[in-house]
Amino acid sequence: MRRPVIGIVGASDPSQESYAAALALGRLVAERGWIVLTGGRPLGVMAAACAGAKQVPGSLTLGILPGALSGEGPDVDVAVFTAMGEARNAINVMSSDVVVACGVEGPGTVSEVGLALRAGKPVILLGASADARSFFRRIGHWLEAAGPEEAARIIEQELKILRGPAWPTS
Amino acid sequence: MRRPVIGIVGASDPSQESYAAALALGRLVAERGWIVLTGGRPLGVMAAACAGAKQVPGSLTLGILPGALSGEGPDVDVAVFTAMGEARNAINVMSSDVVVACGVEGPGTVSEVGLALRAGKPVILLGASADARSFFRRIGHWLEAAGPEEAARIIEQELKILRGPAWPTS
Amino acid sequence: MRRPVIGIVGASDPSQESYAAALALGRLVAERGWIVLTGGRPLGVMAAACAGAKQVPGSLTLGILPGALSGEGPDVDVAVFTAMGEARNAINVMSSDVVVACGVEGPGTVSEVGLALRAGKPVILLGASADARSFFRRIGHWLEAAGPEEAARIIEQELKILRGPAWPTS
Amino acid sequence: MRRPVIGIVGASDPSQESYAAALALGRLVAERGWIVLTGGRPLGVMAAACAGAKQVPGSLTLGILPGALSGEGPDVDVAVFTAMGEARNAINVMSSDVVVACGVEGPGTVSEVGLALRAGKPVILLGASADARSFFRRIGHWLEAAGPEEAARIIEQELKILRGPAWPTS
Repeated sequence: MRRPVIGIVGASDPSQESYAAALALGRLVAERGWIVLTGGRPLGVMAAACAGAKQVPGSLTLGILPGALSGEGPDVDVAVFTAMGEARNAINVMSSDVVVACGVEGPGTVSEVGLALRAGKPVILLGASADARSFFRRIGHWLEAAGPEEAARIIEQELKILRGPAWPTS
Repeated sequence: MRRPVIGIVGASDPSQESYAAALALGRLVAERGWIVLTGGRPLGVMAAACAGAKQVPGSLTLGILPGALSGEGPDVDVAVFTAMGEARNAINVMSSDVVVACGVEGPGTVSEVGLALRAGKPVILLGASADARSFFRRIGHWLEAAGPEEAARIIEQELKILRGPAWPTS
Repeated sequence: MRRPVIGIVGASDPSQESYAAALALGRLVAERGWIVLTGGRPLGVMAAACAGAKQVPGSLTLGILPGALSGEGPDVDVAVFTAMGEARNAINVMSSDVVVACGVEGPGTVSEVGLALRAGKPVILLGASADARSFFRRIGHWLEAAGPEEAARIIEQELKILRGPAWPTS
Repeated sequence: MRRPVIGIVGASDPSQESYAAALALGRLVAERGWIVLTGGRPLGVMAAACAGAKQVPGSLTLGILPGALSGEGPDVDVAVFTAMGEARNAINVMSSDVVVACGVEGPGTVSEVGLALRAGKPVILLGASADARSFFRRIGHWLEAAGPEEAARIIEQELKILRGPAWPTS
């Protein structure tokens, strides 16, 4: 059975809190055997999530890049070069079983949260500002996590819903 | 010289105010000779903007559709079938000289505003809620319009910046 | 009822014969009130088809561009900027009621003929080499035109099949 | 250093020879530690290449799918859901260091070979018909392999060119 894929999205120039959350969450996701999917560039939340994951032996990181040939971060194991620019954000979301935004601080992240809600994906906002929470409450259904550990617990619950209650023990 | 292209985006199930704003703005844009670009479906803001434009003889409406074969509204003159689902939102934005959101009420619109800000396009929020304005103020630079007429005036100013001060008289 | 869209594809550095065929076909398509769709750049078959169309008053040319901001030819009326590079070839094909290749001389054209056959679109090869015809006969069903006038006649037949026998008189 | 990615493309309904070639090549690629990239569906050359790879412990297979949620074959380790239909063929090609076509027997494969030549990727035709070879000789530069072992040797040479002569020993 394929390993679950967790999309971790966020700004390329995030707050310190969002960077730290992505680093911790990347590690927690990888420790559970799940694949970390990001936008693949060596910047901000993308870089942090991959770096956190690569602290774990056997981890797998998947980067969906905007460019054609290069630009992937050093902690990306599998790079998909879309040559589609920001239109690749839709692929990030479609390829994730669950999407976690570590802060909603930049326009690319806003587009990914919007696309994930539009696609009916489970969406977790981790460390979102009060403004972001007020706004997105009107836009769709999502879950809130106070920290990386809570996000990992919510992801596990969502995966059980997606893959059936016996997962992952059977 | 190519006619300017104005992207009008908004929910497929908008508030009455947003629907009315899109209808009026579609007409105002078409009266100025500009092309109305939408997501092309026969729903909500997309349908209203095209219907408004088609009240004007000589108007041209361009719909960028998510599907492969059909699904365009009756007021779409030129339909582009992307077969790319919501990833086509990125094309809507890239193909518009100016993007106007008539309300920010659904997740698809959120993604388009995010992508437009990310691409550095001139973005006008028309009739956005206080929550939306508070949130997007942290995300990037955009312009606010109280109504369709003000939106049309701002579009004209932005087009002069994009195309040079002599435009469109020379 | 929307005007039919005829995709005219071919090399950016075509043979003289293919260039001349695209110029003549663009004009014939426009004279019949159909929209000419191309890849939009100011090169080769794309440029010729648009130039031919723009000899006709009231003609409409649609260019689906690989880039994000510019690069369209002078005879493109409506430019769609995909920012998707050559992945936009799939959109060219999906958005055309009928696809005509003026020569199959470059790799981009090969991809478009392949994608059009894959999508089940009516495909006309105009001026294809004997090698191309031998090869594509094994790949799928397509129609052959000896010249632009024959291509226009075949397009008309295909449009009658697509839109019903009463078209375009009713 | 990221593992090389080898795109193996071919028909969903291939000849017996092409199926056998893809199965053998998938295994040879995986034995060398390279990632096998395919279109991801449980059909034809895609399925064979992945099945061959998964005979090798530690192998990694990457499937770039046309759909949004499912449709991947049982031997795909990492599935990317593009929801872009056949436009995803461009991503397959851009994400591969080297592209090998096991037969050129269907329209999708034709599009991938065209896109790979257009992108300047190293392209190997394995078991292509005489017609295909005659045709593609006019279209661009590519390499010919008589069988899977020769294809693997050519891939290795191309990777040395791409990654430098010391690769993979340093």
